[in-house]
Amino acid sequence: MPPFWQKCIVTYIGFDLPSTEKALISRIRSQAARGKNVVAGIGDDAAVLRLPPGHQVLVTTDFTLEGVHFRRDWQPAESVGHRCLARGLSDIAAMGGEPVAVFLSLALPASLSQTWVDGFMSGFLALARKSAVGLAGGDTAESPDGILADVVVLGSVPAGTATLRSGARPGDRIYLSGELGGAAAAIREMSGKPRGRLKPVDYSRHFFPEPRLALGRLIRQKGLASAMIDISDGLSTDLAHICEESGMGAEIRAEAIPLASVGKPRHEVELELALHGGEDYELLFTAPRQKPIPPRIAGVPIHLIGHITRSRKVLLINRSGAGFDLRPQGWEHFRK
Amino acid sequence: MPPFWQKCIVTYIGFDLPSTEKALISRIRSQAARGKNVVAGIGDDAAVLRLPPGHQVLVTTDFTLEGVHFRRDWQPAESVGHRCLARGLSDIAAMGGEPVAVFLSLALPASLSQTWVDGFMSGFLALARKSAVGLAGGDTAESPDGILADVVVLGSVPAGTATLRSGARPGDRIYLSGELGGAAAAIREMSGKPRGRLKPVDYSRHFFPEPRLALGRLIRQKGLASAMIDISDGLSTDLAHICEESGMGAEIRAEAIPLASVGKPRHEVELELALHGGEDYELLFTAPRQKPIPPRIAGVPIHLIGHITRSRKVLLINRSGAGFDLRPQGWEHFRK
Repeated sequence: MPPFWQKCIVTYIGFDLPSTEKALISRIRSQAARGKNVVAGIGDDAAVLRLPPGHQVLVTTDFTLEGVHFRRDWQPAESVGHRCLARGLSDIAAMGGEPVAVFLSLALPASLSQTWVDGFMSGFLALARKSAVGLAGGDTAESPDGILADVVVLGSVPAGTATLRSGARPGDRIYLSGELGGAAAAIREMSGKPRGRLKPVDYSRHFFPEPRLALGRLIRQKGLASAMIDISDGLSTDLAHICEESGMGAEIRAEAIPLASVGKPRHEVELELALHGGEDYELLFTAPRQKPIPPRIAGVPIHLIGHITRSRKVLLINRSGAGFDLRPQGWEHFRK
Repeated sequence: MPPFWQKCIVTYIGFDLPSTEKALISRIRSQAARGKNVVAGIGDDAAVLRLPPGHQVLVTTDFTLEGVHFRRDWQPAESVGHRCLARGLSDIAAMGGEPVAVFLSLALPASLSQTWVDGFMSGFLALARKSAVGLAGGDTAESPDGILADVVVLGSVPAGTATLRSGARPGDRIYLSGELGGAAAAIREMSGKPRGRLKPVDYSRHFFPEPRLALGRLIRQKGLASAMIDISDGLSTDLAHICEESGMGAEIRAEAIPLASVGKPRHEVELELALHGGEDYELLFTAPRQKPIPPRIAGVPIHLIGHITRSRKVLLINRSGAGFDLRPQGWEHFRK
């Protein structure tokens, strides 16, 4: 049994915890894997983690709030658990890193059902297992209103090799993995029919997005990318981040942007969703023109969508060759 | 300017953030120190941190919730900011670690005043500076109700040297730094007069507790302790943690427990508060009998309060030599 949660039991049980919190701790206690990087002393006053020699630490933290990042009537609990971990793992993938350990802090309303908590933990832990990373600690509290999760993912990279956003240079080509717009399409569908749930299998990119860990790691190991970011806020926003950090501009071709297929029957999403919808967790990267980039890496299709310019502007080029300013319109756009 | 927050600006400003959130980000942007361990690539998709060679990573996460850990009418904003960081730093101290970087995630109600946010950040950043640790990232969100902070502190120790809770052996002596009960005394005072604030200078242990980083580090470097923990939940609970993890029991002498002096005029707290009141953030450690422990370490008085036994029970011995079961009654006790 991981000593951290053992400690939680001693600390918390005995006080008047809501039953959900007891259930949570007990579920974590029985299911959390220690993970290969977690030293035996885990979770004493702090967790103790081992890094490979000569590596640096990557750290990312993400809040997931009910009503902002999910709705209980839209996403099943398993999906909420999966998605809040996927966000952090995707950040590690975008640095070319290897996940080392995850920490989950949860504030839960006293009225929350044990079934929901169990579902959440199932989704969370299944993705952790799949990503070969252990849950090494966290915190719990009673929330006065709504569910709140704060997920911390620690990763590692050999010192000096993290793939940053700031390395894009004029003439570099811009590549994108997978397809875009699938996650935003689900949000749009659900906004249109407030009481109807979608089938996760028809919109898997939304309900169970796959962080591109193997892809990011290969890109970093082979030194393919000059800059990299994950698509969490939407292509228009995330490409703007690369340009901003690199002091560059970009041109991308509308017809080169891979559109996701969603729903039943399957249909392609509109370009608008692929440009501005977020949470697809694909990787966007730039590479020098002379660097050969294979059409698939780690089994994921790679698309050439444009190139970096000196202009400091981001242009979308349509079929007829006309260019339009592409303004960052991240996923928050869809919440309005 | 730290690139992470630069990115936050680009990401967040432009959407309809509550003004408090904008103020928070802008305040962090102008004031956050990068810290010596934070590599230039910080806060890209993830922060990149450097560890000394041969070190392991320590990680601790702590929720601080309005209404549970603080009340806006009890603690000034500066104190709330200070205390939520002190909790994490104290955990690092209890492992004998060196803090490497801190991460602050804040969910704030839209109605919160900028003055409060400024005060909070002042308190938080002042303690970070004093502890020579940089704020390396985090997340912000709008909270539907009440302020919520999740603080992550990363630390480091030379591999294999973290001082765990599990190393206490029969006959080891039990030592305590500083004085106890000062923090709980403030809570009791404030519970008694609901609308009156206390002067922080009269109850500094509550409003501005001092994590014992230098002390913890020296204890680890000199190999003095067989086990160590910080007093966050109260002596009775935290000593029980050491006994539990070490598979041991303990006897402590009531008259040996150092009682804090608080208030105006100054007076000693009752034994009850020193036994069960938490959040004093002193260090409790055990050491083999033959190990000489100086009366002060890193300027902090060290008190011998008892010894470890094989019995698996924790006994409190009174002046007349009678022993009583000391049940864990952590600080939550005071909230009832």
